[in-house]
Amino acid sequence: MSPRRVAFQVSTRSPEEILDVTDKVQGAVRELGIEDGFVVLFCPHTTCALTVNEAADPDVREDVSSALSALVPRIPFRHGEGNSPAHLRAALLGPTLLLPVEGGRLSLGTWQGVYLCEFDGPRRRSVWVYPLAAR
Amino acid sequence: MSPRRVAFQVSTRSPEEILDVTDKVQGAVRELGIEDGFVVLFCPHTTCALTVNEAADPDVREDVSSALSALVPRIPFRHGEGNSPAHLRAALLGPTLLLPVEGGRLSLGTWQGVYLCEFDGPRRRSVWVYPLAAR
Amino acid sequence: MSPRRVAFQVSTRSPEEILDVTDKVQGAVRELGIEDGFVVLFCPHTTCALTVNEAADPDVREDVSSALSALVPRIPFRHGEGNSPAHLRAALLGPTLLLPVEGGRLSLGTWQGVYLCEFDGPRRRSVWVYPLAAR
Repeated sequence: MSPRRVAFQVSTRSPEEILDVTDKVQGAVRELGIEDGFVVLFCPHTTCALTVNEAADPDVREDVSSALSALVPRIPFRHGEGNSPAHLRAALLGPTLLLPVEGGRLSLGTWQGVYLCEFDGPRRRSVWVYPLAAR
Repeated sequence: MSPRRVAFQVSTRSPEEILDVTDKVQGAVRELGIEDGFVVLFCPHTTCALTVNEAADPDVREDVSSALSALVPRIPFRHGEGNSPAHLRAALLGPTLLLPVEGGRLSLGTWQGVYLCEFDGPRRRSVWVYPLAAR
Repeated sequence: MSPRRVAFQVSTRSPEEILDVTDKVQGAVRELGIEDGFVVLFCPHTTCALTVNEAADPDVREDVSSALSALVPRIPFRHGEGNSPAHLRAALLGPTLLLPVEGGRLSLGTWQGVYLCEFDGPRRRSVWVYPLAAR
């Protein structure tokens, strides 16, 4: 019987960083035995997020990370930990991804990869990965 | 037989407000009889949205709400109702959430809660809740 | 047997544009034979995205499109193609939608429609559409 959930971990090294986790997600798809259907990714943290974007040029990741940082408004925040800008960006990108799997492989567009976006690092982060059958 | 969909309502009290609806979602999970799988939340409105973020300190909700308001660009809008900034924020956060359920309980990270984000209140809002089996 | 995936195409005509694709999604729901459950939309591109928002007044689409453009920070970008602002907006809105279907029809709120958001057009864009059973 296939497992119902697996998890993988990544260690971020900077306060703000976008990490390519496509290979880790593909490894989880294999471990879960998903042939055709979907994989659900869930990020159990409140200051990092998951997204899909261009995997070809690493500059895209750096640009998106810098732009997400720059778009945080310069307003006074109340939360004592001082990481409200990280919570904002996590909410904007969201904690879940639902991705198609075909023939045992993540089915992404030609230029797409899966990213974990760190907004309050460096930290050790987990991603929970679940199988989801189409029908 | 378990129901196919339930809904819950909340009343917002301000133009902009982030409400913790974790208990309402957990109640719907129980009512739908979801043991292991997922719950799908759908917000049938165009000026509010759903997200997951920190539940421990209510200041985080206020900070995220204020920051979402402050990041709306100061440009002229065409829509006659004057609530285009609310539509923008609803699009940024999105109308759906797909959340894991394990052992009859929402499976969230330690600090996470589920939020309804009001951008054009006060209003009465509905959230539709659906069960989704893993396989 | 119903197909496992269909796709539809749209041609955008401007660098930035939000297109109503509700009818195309409804057509795919019919073609896939989904009666009750969900439809999953996946955008295999890195400079466009999918969202749900108001379908009644087309001005809302134009306002949201303009506001998304205006909120891109004016910072230097590294990516040589010059379309990092498009990648940022695609990440903010996200590449997938999970929408409920009831009685063979997309189950949306009164004012909602499904949109493809172009951030680096004009281009020919595809949307992949998958059925997903509730249980």
